[in-house]
Amino acid sequence: MFVPFSVTDFLDRAVGVYGDRVGVVDEPLQPASPLGGGELTYAEIGRLAARQAARLDELGIGFGDRVAFVSHNSARLLTAFFGVAGHGRVLVPVNFRLRPDEVEYIVQHSGARMLVIDPELADELAEVKAEFKVIIGEDDAELYAPEGAVPVPWEHDESATACINYTSGTTARPKGVQITHRNIWTNAVTFAMHTTLSDRDVYLHTLPMFHANGWGMPFATTGLGIKQVVIRKIDGAEILRRVRDHGVTIMCAAPAVAASILEAARDWEGEIPGRDKVRIIMAGAPPPTKTVARVEEELGWEFIQIYGLTETSPLLTINRGRQEWDHLSALDRAALLTRAGAPALGVTLRIDDSEDNAGEVLARSNVVLEGYWEQPEETARALDGGWFHTGDGGVIGDDGYLTISDRKKDVIITGGENVSSIEVEDVLFSHPAVAEVAVIGVPSEKWGETIKALVVLAEGAEVTEAELIAWCKQKAAGYKAPTSVEFRTELARTATGKLQKFKLRAPYWEGFDRQVN
Amino acid sequence: MFVPFSVTDFLDRAVGVYGDRVGVVDEPLQPASPLGGGELTYAEIGRLAARQAARLDELGIGFGDRVAFVSHNSARLLTAFFGVAGHGRVLVPVNFRLRPDEVEYIVQHSGARMLVIDPELADELAEVKAEFKVIIGEDDAELYAPEGAVPVPWEHDESATACINYTSGTTARPKGVQITHRNIWTNAVTFAMHTTLSDRDVYLHTLPMFHANGWGMPFATTGLGIKQVVIRKIDGAEILRRVRDHGVTIMCAAPAVAASILEAARDWEGEIPGRDKVRIIMAGAPPPTKTVARVEEELGWEFIQIYGLTETSPLLTINRGRQEWDHLSALDRAALLTRAGAPALGVTLRIDDSEDNAGEVLARSNVVLEGYWEQPEETARALDGGWFHTGDGGVIGDDGYLTISDRKKDVIITGGENVSSIEVEDVLFSHPAVAEVAVIGVPSEKWGETIKALVVLAEGAEVTEAELIAWCKQKAAGYKAPTSVEFRTELARTATGKLQKFKLRAPYWEGFDRQVN
Repeated sequence: MFVPFSVTDFLDRAVGVYGDRVGVVDEPLQPASPLGGGELTYAEIGRLAARQAARLDELGIGFGDRVAFVSHNSARLLTAFFGVAGHGRVLVPVNFRLRPDEVEYIVQHSGARMLVIDPELADELAEVKAEFKVIIGEDDAELYAPEGAVPVPWEHDESATACINYTSGTTARPKGVQITHRNIWTNAVTFAMHTTLSDRDVYLHTLPMFHANGWGMPFATTGLGIKQVVIRKIDGAEILRRVRDHGVTIMCAAPAVAASILEAARDWEGEIPGRDKVRIIMAGAPPPTKTVARVEEELGWEFIQIYGLTETSPLLTINRGRQEWDHLSALDRAALLTRAGAPALGVTLRIDDSEDNAGEVLARSNVVLEGYWEQPEETARALDGGWFHTGDGGVIGDDGYLTISDRKKDVIITGGENVSSIEVEDVLFSHPAVAEVAVIGVPSEKWGETIKALVVLAEGAEVTEAELIAWCKQKAAGYKAPTSVEFRTELARTATGKLQKFKLRAPYWEGFDRQVN
Repeated sequence: MFVPFSVTDFLDRAVGVYGDRVGVVDEPLQPASPLGGGELTYAEIGRLAARQAARLDELGIGFGDRVAFVSHNSARLLTAFFGVAGHGRVLVPVNFRLRPDEVEYIVQHSGARMLVIDPELADELAEVKAEFKVIIGEDDAELYAPEGAVPVPWEHDESATACINYTSGTTARPKGVQITHRNIWTNAVTFAMHTTLSDRDVYLHTLPMFHANGWGMPFATTGLGIKQVVIRKIDGAEILRRVRDHGVTIMCAAPAVAASILEAARDWEGEIPGRDKVRIIMAGAPPPTKTVARVEEELGWEFIQIYGLTETSPLLTINRGRQEWDHLSALDRAALLTRAGAPALGVTLRIDDSEDNAGEVLARSNVVLEGYWEQPEETARALDGGWFHTGDGGVIGDDGYLTISDRKKDVIITGGENVSSIEVEDVLFSHPAVAEVAVIGVPSEKWGETIKALVVLAEGAEVTEAELIAWCKQKAAGYKAPTSVEFRTELARTATGKLQKFKLRAPYWEGFDRQVN
């Protein structure tokens, strides 16, 4: 029997089996709304999603139409995954940190007929226009049909686009990543399986739901009846408090979030909450091994690394401590754990060996996007030859584990030697005065490229350029040491905490065709 | 991107990520073979599966052709799921307890071109014919092409039939249940998710792999790189020894297996192995609450109940202790746990309310069979109206949990009162003298049906019919007490331990049209 996979599978199970459980704990809305904030059971989320779909029916926003949502993590946004995408429309969750003209571009490009905005963003996005524009909490009748309204049934289609996620930040013009119901289903279920997610877990949404649909966790946790605790502003101490107060056992987090938790843990009085219970899942550039070891030692939390892109729903690889590594020291284990990881079930990886793209990671899986919205050429390029081209460089070890070496972005070729910028960052980060660091290649007449470090110092710390260069020479081969260090107050990052090396490099490469020499 | 789901996904991941790990621990083959028994790593299983596929190429056994396998649980049978089904052929795992004429029927009906037989069964099945007949271990070149042979690539198709499982026992003529790659994938992944299976588990195959493909566990455990320990003969003490020696953490078992483990635990010296570590998953008729409580208290193992059929791959529902029940007494929790459980992700259940079939459990899911092999009318009947008709009666509670009440088979209507035979069995089983019990309805001129108990006494125990009837009247409403008790030395069961009530009832209903009055 063929039954189309659908995002509604997740909510249907939560409503049917966990209807009385608290599904989401949100913060109160400002301005206050009868629907705003507090707790919603899964039964309530189910009713709200049905009312949202019925409202779309009333407005004539039909199956396949787009609905954009610009919101911090919230019960409203969580519900929209089901009220919009679960009823045949396409949800476009938009990065709430974008400028008004960027939001406008996404609304226009996606052809969103409805734009829903967090009240906190109402003023900033006042000029952005849409056929139906709704400020959450102002008048909920705009967003939800009356209690008891029954939406028009949608004939489920697993290959239908459920969400369009606009990739942010590092490229000039964001692309709309079309994620289907089948993509979401496969990602959510394999992610849940590989993280041993269960109905005894409590999930903390530190990761923005707009970012690759919160990595699919809103679906996985809903399907398992898990309480989802929302946090709108990332603050290490506040995260620790929620772990304690809500019994949080699992969270996904950008590396910067882990850093802020570690920072807060230093000042925390009493035992760190969640010891031996919490698993923290990180993606993006792997954090320095020191951070991983500190997560496991100072917090007593399990560190899990994943790798993927918005285009892959995102789960491609996962790295979780294996019993074979249990006898290793925390630092040795951390070194293994900072690799991108092993392919998730159903993911096939290979490293491109063609001349043009040697070293690029290619992937085949049901988590790979359907295409870029209205960009057939970009789609064809990304899926050329039946493989998804990640744009990241990598190496697959004998044990099947992928390491992102970032050939295109992060390998610096200086004097014919290949240097991993991540490795140099690791060395610099091990210096106590260094709080943040980005290592880039800059043009050099003599070496082709030479290594530059951009450093943010820890509060109150002092160190000189020469001292840091000497530190590197002491810890690694001389050619891996930066030839210059610049001190900064902050480093350009994407909304999700990924270093924007493209931006960091740009000033040094003006007048050059490419950013690799 | 659409990538067909396939059973090879599981083995590919095991070979790529867990190639060095022991995949299966089998018992030595009799007669000894260079390939027989011992341990195989996942890399070795991968090579063996490829050689098996290449051998099928050599013999001209093409994609879609059937290969029957009559074997106890073994490394050979495990490998065949991948070497046969993973390469586009259809594996027909046959119940090794069937009589030769029954095996012959299945080989003929499925059109199997190759028949592979466990050496222990060679004599018994000597007369069964097939185009290619192979006794495992006699000449492995019959089963596997030489090392290094490369099989012809199969273009994967998730809707292709991977296995045909002949349903056994209670009906006159077994039907061939066609299970597709998509069925298997969905079942294995949701089953793994709901049992929080991980690469730190060790799995014990007490359940025969021929039975609904070992409930899909051979795929799930392979995909997660889990060591699979094979046991050929079910013996409680031997199971406890393997739990201890191999660090087993999870097993699936028929109710009779649990009983034999509990029996062995009584004589076990020292601490029961696997306390607070093992989860034991049971299906079929739920065991008496006393058994469940004993599993949790005497063994310290987690009891998990599932419900499903060969036709549903099998996972339809799962019942695992919820945190909401943690404060309950062991017996109260056990009463909740003996229900069939909550629908697995992606499963929709409803109770038929049509006049003819009122009370029957209907299911929609991607785990539901493609059809019965070459029985289009049976298929149409089973899938009538787009729902799979389980043939079991049930009730869905307010909490979404299914209880099998077995309207068709096990509800006895006596004097207009509905009596659940399971409930009466539970009461009888709570009597210390009772080792096994089956309660059936037999014809009665006065009452339509009246209740009869068939009882196997515990070794050395004595009790009279009158005492047992009095026991029941003391514990439950009078009309629920049996009017007669017969003592037996054993009760007819299917190969997988399910009571064959059909057979037990038959002698009493001779000359009647139906077995319900």
